Amino acid sequence: MYNERAYRLGSKRSTIREIFEYAKARSEQIGAENVFDFSIGNPSVPAPDKVNETIRRLTEEIPSVALHGYTSAQGDKEVREKIAQNYTKRFGVPLSGDDLYMTCGAAASLTITLRALRCEGDEFIVFAPYFPEYAVFVAGAGAKLTVLQSDPDTLLPDFEALEKALTPRVKGVIINSPNNPSGVVYGEETIKMLSALLGRKSKEYGAPIYLISDEPYRELVYDKGTKVPSVMAYYENSIVCYSYSKSLSTPGERIGYIAVNPKATDAKAVYFAVCGAGRELGYVCAPALFQRMAAECDGMTADLSVYKRNRDLLYNGLKECGFTCVYPDGAFYLFMKSPEADGQAFCERAKKYELLLVNGADFGADGWVRIAYCVQTERIEKALPLFKELAKEYGLGQGL
Amino acid sequence: MYNERAYRLGSKRSTIREIFEYAKARSEQIGAENVFDFSIGNPSVPAPDKVNETIRRLTEEIPSVALHGYTSAQGDKEVREKIAQNYTKRFGVPLSGDDLYMTCGAAASLTITLRALRCEGDEFIVFAPYFPEYAVFVAGAGAKLTVLQSDPDTLLPDFEALEKALTPRVKGVIINSPNNPSGVVYGEETIKMLSALLGRKSKEYGAPIYLISDEPYRELVYDKGTKVPSVMAYYENSIVCYSYSKSLSTPGERIGYIAVNPKATDAKAVYFAVCGAGRELGYVCAPALFQRMAAECDGMTADLSVYKRNRDLLYNGLKECGFTCVYPDGAFYLFMKSPEADGQAFCERAKKYELLLVNGADFGADGWVRIAYCVQTERIEKALPLFKELAKEYGLGQGL
Repeated sequence: MYNERAYRLGSKRSTIREIFEYAKARSEQIGAENVFDFSIGNPSVPAPDKVNETIRRLTEEIPSVALHGYTSAQGDKEVREKIAQNYTKRFGVPLSGDDLYMTCGAAASLTITLRALRCEGDEFIVFAPYFPEYAVFVAGAGAKLTVLQSDPDTLLPDFEALEKALTPRVKGVIINSPNNPSGVVYGEETIKMLSALLGRKSKEYGAPIYLISDEPYRELVYDKGTKVPSVMAYYENSIVCYSYSKSLSTPGERIGYIAVNPKATDAKAVYFAVCGAGRELGYVCAPALFQRMAAECDGMTADLSVYKRNRDLLYNGLKECGFTCVYPDGAFYLFMKSPEADGQAFCERAKKYELLLVNGADFGADGWVRIAYCVQTERIEKALPLFKELAKEYGLGQGL
Repeated sequence: MYNERAYRLGSKRSTIREIFEYAKARSEQIGAENVFDFSIGNPSVPAPDKVNETIRRLTEEIPSVALHGYTSAQGDKEVREKIAQNYTKRFGVPLSGDDLYMTCGAAASLTITLRALRCEGDEFIVFAPYFPEYAVFVAGAGAKLTVLQSDPDTLLPDFEALEKALTPRVKGVIINSPNNPSGVVYGEETIKMLSALLGRKSKEYGAPIYLISDEPYRELVYDKGTKVPSVMAYYENSIVCYSYSKSLSTPGERIGYIAVNPKATDAKAVYFAVCGAGRELGYVCAPALFQRMAAECDGMTADLSVYKRNRDLLYNGLKECGFTCVYPDGAFYLFMKSPEADGQAFCERAKKYELLLVNGADFGADGWVRIAYCVQTERIEKALPLFKELAKEYGLGQGL
């Protein structure tokens, strides 16, 4: 009587949502100050003042019919040109407004891109750990998702595994750097190796294998030396899926874009397919006011110093406790090895200390947990002694 | 290498877009004041002042992280409750916030609803003339679209044809009242007859046939006696797809909702399927700021008096010229019979008078044309003498 897959997707609460509900109930029992919810990846710092200032100014300056009217389906022309120019200036990649398609955020960028590319029998590759909605979006596009494990120490791609998996059925590889859930950034070296391998295989099969770069955390890096390279500078058949949700702390407003590399094979046709996929999915245009706001605030970020402080405090604190963590270059997540093989059992034990973590298995990486540090710094300060107690249960950090 | 269907959808300009481009080029040649573009269905009156006032106030009153943060996927709880209460007050239909799912406008409402309902082999019925994107949305959901002709005089459903078409494969009937492109409103009598027939057939087949009511023009009616009934008051297995685009003159901002009749068979499961379909299509949540704006402005409308004045002027004027039109109760379109069998030939002849109309064939109704009267009144005043000349070519209005 209704679509069973849609029903399952809509009725099954995600693990993170389960934890969120648990945190709420538990807070009522013992007080919110005693519950340490590290499960949710929501920006915890306000948007730059310019976001609200721009919104208010636009409502005063632009006549209503023009301001709130439809833009073209791919987005307002001036908006696209401005963002493309900024991109070129920042990454040295020639990009024009006609290579950009404004979207309702990163999820829309991905669902549209996948449907634009997908042909019968196609397969897309991701590296674990990966954002679990990729599985939903790939299935929704009618394609197969292949999950590859990453290098267990660095959480960078395992190139041997990738080479083996790159059959002629693979239409694209999805990367997400800085990564949710690991915080790992794919540096220039990694992007170069990926590009070389995908280029070689594309040539071998006589058909492009696309590199789809999901970049909502692009600006969230904390060390001077950390650069998030533009995939478009290294690989022609590449598509960037961007969102302003994390950089501008506006996740509820749903604004982002797709950039199709103008050097891609049949780039214009791929761009048209993006337009067509957006149309079929019901995306008439991205919210017009937020398109204009994004163009004016493009390149700005919310105050990221809180995330950096949190990252340093948490990473160093957990290492001191004796836990094994991958150094998170960016995003606002830390990925930590579970000291027992069963990540869920570890999460349950952490819960006894009121520490709410997410099992890595939810991201395709059992034996790990994700800790979202987009919280008040004080929460991390108070949580560290509890992590120390938890570590002791596993005999960690005894020598310190 | 890419999705061919998406490419075709993205690369093929719609007829209306073609006319729009023609109008632009022609305006440069002979001056915009001499070109009469009646092709585009864009609201031409400003949003109520409260829209911008509310947007500005919200940015000042609600802290950034809460204002611009994710809402729940189905929409902010308070927003949904407020809109549901208004709906109940206005239509006498008991509705709670948990029956509402906030969307990025009417197109999203429809794509989500169709995917939520669609099972293998399903079919959806529409009545011509119909909004042509329905064909895109139904195909995108993987279902078959069946187009039925309406009664040729009233453009109301042909119930005999409908009864014949209602096989067990039909999952739903999509109606659109006030109608784009005809302006016709389905009154209480029509809704009652539809409900009775769908109810009888649902019972016969032992499975609900849904009535999907696409209502972006719900508030755009111009005569005291004209009422747009709520389908939920008459038929249990009904789903309302709404958008604020036309009522608030904010089509670019993409805000609307889906209301699942709480009395529908397995209403909760259908609602979950809506949530799941939205998730799969990449709709994380509807724009948060506009959700709150919509809740505050729900029930208001832009100044509709211009549309009414235009409607009266155009309808009476065209009748005087000798054209045959269906009286448009609502929306901002007028559907006129082409005086020659080939609607396109008529549009071409109108073009010689700089009158730009849309061929009814684009809406599944050959032999008609659509005239969008959401323009400056002065445009209609100046166009009427040209329509008169055009009518004379067909020997119309000679007796007047």
